Amino acid sequence: MKKTKLICTQCNKTYSIERVHPRCDVCNEPLEVEKVTKGKIKAGNILKQTILDRYGDFFPFLEIDRTLSLYEGFTPLVESSQLAHELGVKRVLFKNESQNPTWSFKDRGTVVGAQHAITMGYKRIGAVSTGNMAVSVAAYGAKAGLQTFILVSAKLPAEKLTPIAVHNPILIQVDGDYWQLYFDSLEMSKRHDIYFINSDVPFRVEGSKTIAFEICEQMNFASPDYVIVPTSAGGNIRGIMKGFEEFKGSGIIKNVPKIICAQASGCAPIYTAYIRNEECITRVENPHTIAHALENPYPPSGNDVLRKIKRNGGLCVAVSDEAILQAQRELAERTGIFGQPAAAVPLAAIRKLRKEKVLSGKDTVVCIVSGSGLKYMAALEKRSFKIHTCQLENLNKFMEAML
Amino acid sequence: MKKTKLICTQCNKTYSIERVHPRCDVCNEPLEVEKVTKGKIKAGNILKQTILDRYGDFFPFLEIDRTLSLYEGFTPLVESSQLAHELGVKRVLFKNESQNPTWSFKDRGTVVGAQHAITMGYKRIGAVSTGNMAVSVAAYGAKAGLQTFILVSAKLPAEKLTPIAVHNPILIQVDGDYWQLYFDSLEMSKRHDIYFINSDVPFRVEGSKTIAFEICEQMNFASPDYVIVPTSAGGNIRGIMKGFEEFKGSGIIKNVPKIICAQASGCAPIYTAYIRNEECITRVENPHTIAHALENPYPPSGNDVLRKIKRNGGLCVAVSDEAILQAQRELAERTGIFGQPAAAVPLAAIRKLRKEKVLSGKDTVVCIVSGSGLKYMAALEKRSFKIHTCQLENLNKFMEAML
Repeated sequence: MKKTKLICTQCNKTYSIERVHPRCDVCNEPLEVEKVTKGKIKAGNILKQTILDRYGDFFPFLEIDRTLSLYEGFTPLVESSQLAHELGVKRVLFKNESQNPTWSFKDRGTVVGAQHAITMGYKRIGAVSTGNMAVSVAAYGAKAGLQTFILVSAKLPAEKLTPIAVHNPILIQVDGDYWQLYFDSLEMSKRHDIYFINSDVPFRVEGSKTIAFEICEQMNFASPDYVIVPTSAGGNIRGIMKGFEEFKGSGIIKNVPKIICAQASGCAPIYTAYIRNEECITRVENPHTIAHALENPYPPSGNDVLRKIKRNGGLCVAVSDEAILQAQRELAERTGIFGQPAAAVPLAAIRKLRKEKVLSGKDTVVCIVSGSGLKYMAALEKRSFKIHTCQLENLNKFMEAML
Repeated sequence: MKKTKLICTQCNKTYSIERVHPRCDVCNEPLEVEKVTKGKIKAGNILKQTILDRYGDFFPFLEIDRTLSLYEGFTPLVESSQLAHELGVKRVLFKNESQNPTWSFKDRGTVVGAQHAITMGYKRIGAVSTGNMAVSVAAYGAKAGLQTFILVSAKLPAEKLTPIAVHNPILIQVDGDYWQLYFDSLEMSKRHDIYFINSDVPFRVEGSKTIAFEICEQMNFASPDYVIVPTSAGGNIRGIMKGFEEFKGSGIIKNVPKIICAQASGCAPIYTAYIRNEECITRVENPHTIAHALENPYPPSGNDVLRKIKRNGGLCVAVSDEAILQAQRELAERTGIFGQPAAAVPLAAIRKLRKEKVLSGKDTVVCIVSGSGLKYMAALEKRSFKIHTCQLENLNKFMEAML
């Protein structure tokens, strides 16, 4: 590992970069890797690079094990002038994370976490997750040939278990408090030498930096005004902010965009604390949203997201399930991108913030499309689609009437 | 359009590059765009290029409408030394087409077809398809804001309709012979000014060339010994062969790899004709395979695939559903890639061909992973997965027993 350290995001206490426990012993807030302020992008053909190759200056590894990679990242940034027009903003662009190896942004953090685990000599990895992260860690564990423990809630339906199980991890449905399970996993990590690449571990957060790095490249180093991130545990939005800050610190971009933390109204602990001007989040008692990927009632990085949003000058927003489903539909119908409900939250947020005049017609906005709509088809069960039926011999006439 | 032409793949009769009808008026065999023999790769940052930018020399367009693109292609080539060892070949690599915008290889051909349609002044596109292609054309139609007609079989189950319907095309379930429907679509194309980007249209085939181009770049221009392509209608394998040939003709690579046409035993018209040493395929009467994406009983490019495989020096193979499902499992468990059943056919083919000593321990083999496993979860319904259950308070002991 390069000479660097972990720093507490609240009290600034420092720790060895080799530490695996992700939280501060003093204040129990998440740690993060010290910021890089002298990095450069490594030129090269992306068809033959991994994110750890191209942005290697911004990671503390001295050596990269490329066999861990499934070639995550380097996802498209798709512009929609039609939606910009409809929403009344200058430009709107979608960072399509559904084109990752397991079809969500999680793969970026998983590969960086796996790299840290391997560097530290671990032979076992794990995750406490109910969705995208569980699938991602199971897939990367399979690729690396590591013993992989996936701990999920006992309530998880079969449709969510299968995409995890196909990679053959040790998959355990745990009956009990899910939040307690997260803390227990930190203990088990020590006791059983398992590197849990959970949502808030510093090296998973490091992986999310690359979303910011790529947006900078794709926008020719002219930052957008806003980047909207659907936020659950909080690790992804922390990483994206850190990425922009490191590129600014390194002189690669001039401005850090304002970051918008977007949540679902049915589970919005960070938004609620933000609106109340509180410094700490409060646990949501009965989380319920169609955007299941955002259904974390007590985000482990919640307080740090609050701190970082204040420092960044960004804001928080929450949108209803109705608005989320409408946005999912608009995204698919206008841009051709079929995102999971959580992935449509930023688009719903634009509509709300534009109505409230927080966003203006001069703004360029990037939305993070966090994962594929194929991951949660049940969200569409209640929608009725217009599907015509016709006999082959009548098809010509039928089509004529359609033109 | 650049000065070039369409040529019949059988009788060499030539046609204008502006022609939309994909088949020869004389022999009814598929047409193809004249081969390019003086092309170069355009250097540039792939984060900001489309496949039509980077490989523009190999396409006949004078101008590219980049708003048609969802940034398809540039997919990973993932190596598995473990599988190579287990299979007894030198190297095995997987071209992971599930990381495309609609999670299958179809997006490459769709964008090229849409570009031709736009160039020719069409305002309507369409497809006759039951799966990946329907989804892809619906998505690109939405992005381009074109009226989009998707004609599917009346038998298509709801789970396959929804991912098409989310993009809001004019979706018609047609009751009647599916093969007749394909031919009727050619007529409707003329009558209603609809550009059907079906599986064998020359410009869809052109899109598949980019799979070959990228493999060449990713392997540092040293061709593999074999490329195995799961084959249904036959457009994709034709395009891949053409791509390698054009790179060879342009002096970019020295050798064209041998191409293996891989089918499912339950629907293997090309394989059957190959084994019988016949020049034309025969329609399969009762196609039935778990790899639904390969269930085309009378592939429109079938005869041309036979011709091209002979010229190329490659071969055909068919594998059982049992072998396909085993390969799907191995792929997910060894490489972390969860492919749809059709996508696992090449891996099943390696096992069979190695056993038959067609492949040797000296061979480097590339498998085309055609689409995402999320597209057809029903294939896994009968599999039983090992899923543990445990009370939270017993978790520590439980895990200890697992180590």
